Amino acid sequence: MKILISNDDGIDSRGISALANEMKKLGEVIVIAPRTEQSAVGHAITMKIPLRITEYYKNGDFFGYAIDGTPADCIKIGIRNIMKEPPDIVISGINLGSNTAINIIYSGTVSAAREAAIMDVPSIAVSVTSHDPKHYEYAAKFTLELTKLIVKNKLKTGTLLNVNVPDLPEEEISGVMLTQQGKSKWDDIYEERKDPYGKKYYWLTGNLVQADSTLETDQHAVQQNYVSVTPIHFDLTDYETYDTMKSWQLEKLYKQKS
Amino acid sequence: MKILISNDDGIDSRGISALANEMKKLGEVIVIAPRTEQSAVGHAITMKIPLRITEYYKNGDFFGYAIDGTPADCIKIGIRNIMKEPPDIVISGINLGSNTAINIIYSGTVSAAREAAIMDVPSIAVSVTSHDPKHYEYAAKFTLELTKLIVKNKLKTGTLLNVNVPDLPEEEISGVMLTQQGKSKWDDIYEERKDPYGKKYYWLTGNLVQADSTLETDQHAVQQNYVSVTPIHFDLTDYETYDTMKSWQLEKLYKQKS
Repeated sequence: MKILISNDDGIDSRGISALANEMKKLGEVIVIAPRTEQSAVGHAITMKIPLRITEYYKNGDFFGYAIDGTPADCIKIGIRNIMKEPPDIVISGINLGSNTAINIIYSGTVSAAREAAIMDVPSIAVSVTSHDPKHYEYAAKFTLELTKLIVKNKLKTGTLLNVNVPDLPEEEISGVMLTQQGKSKWDDIYEERKDPYGKKYYWLTGNLVQADSTLETDQHAVQQNYVSVTPIHFDLTDYETYDTMKSWQLEKLYKQKS
Repeated sequence: MKILISNDDGIDSRGISALANEMKKLGEVIVIAPRTEQSAVGHAITMKIPLRITEYYKNGDFFGYAIDGTPADCIKIGIRNIMKEPPDIVISGINLGSNTAINIIYSGTVSAAREAAIMDVPSIAVSVTSHDPKHYEYAAKFTLELTKLIVKNKLKTGTLLNVNVPDLPEEEISGVMLTQQGKSKWDDIYEERKDPYGKKYYWLTGNLVQADSTLETDQHAVQQNYVSVTPIHFDLTDYETYDTMKSWQLEKLYKQKS
């Protein structure tokens, strides 16, 4: 089994090492990840400047390939130019900080896995809930077990699994929940500051406004110390509104021929 | 009526001027857009460096505010710090090049409109099919008419309309289609080149593989010279797979308590 591992925290992240060490038990691991941190880059891809591929060594050993681009770039160039053949699965993470509710939209980690789904490769995005995690072990172990389940049950083409794991030792985990993307969103605040030359600048901060209260939502499940597994896809069509809008009679907007 | 206009091609783009001039007929227009081109940045937001807001003048007149960030940044900081109050509608565009099928995922233009939807503001992303458009007029005019329809019919909170307009004079447009996101995807190619020092670098190119053949898909509709209007949202949950996965018995992955 060929396993491609990437992330958005950069190839030197402890999260990627923890994942690579665990996933080795299941097959051949190849690490292709951004050279530097790429948090919150969403599904950005690099088109206006060229990419470079650099062999990356850790403690003197070959560890993988560093790409000076985004997480989605890593999956694209990794599969097209480094691997040549698609892997059996792509795993993105372990991300520092949860990717639940609205954060899925901004996440580079999820976007790497989503790019794999676009390329018809099954994939998992995995995050731990803390920005300074103490417990990568269970997240890595869980991802390995989930990978076995994907192999067994087959995941629909175009779908990826977004996994969030509480930053806790295994015995304190409440269990595992199959979830939907929550509705919690950020109340953004831009802090106004002045630079040493008196010019204003703005720094994004804010608070996540909790709007989820059932274990069927990713955000609430992890807060209750459950591992959350959410199937997501890249069909953004709002089918409910599509049906509603049939009554809008859009065709009448084109006066010429109506 | 207060109308916030943004884009991903940058505040100096002809597309944004065409849109601003047309939308003035309907209300007060405020332009808040990236200082430089931000194509394919997806839903990236700027968190690790601060943002700056600069007043932008065009032909000596005040035109709007340039932000040294992404399209999603412009909507966030524009509404929070410049406007203070949400506008009645956000319009992102007119983008150079269509944002249909898989391109919706990568698009900065669509992400600006999607950020508005996240902030509960109705929004439209509008693109013309050419990268060197000859005909912005109909796209601008259509957006104005569609805005009136949104005001009349109300758009569900969290939904935005993704509009693609053929680069044609009005009389050559076939009509208007209500569509779904198509399934056409890129066959990516990374061109390998060498820099003047003999080091390899890679440049993303590729071909869009056509997988859409009905007028109910955005990609095929614009190819048949129709204006395409697709309702999209930011709930990425794959509900079909969610139902299927109930039989996976994920809870058994947590051995401790089962």
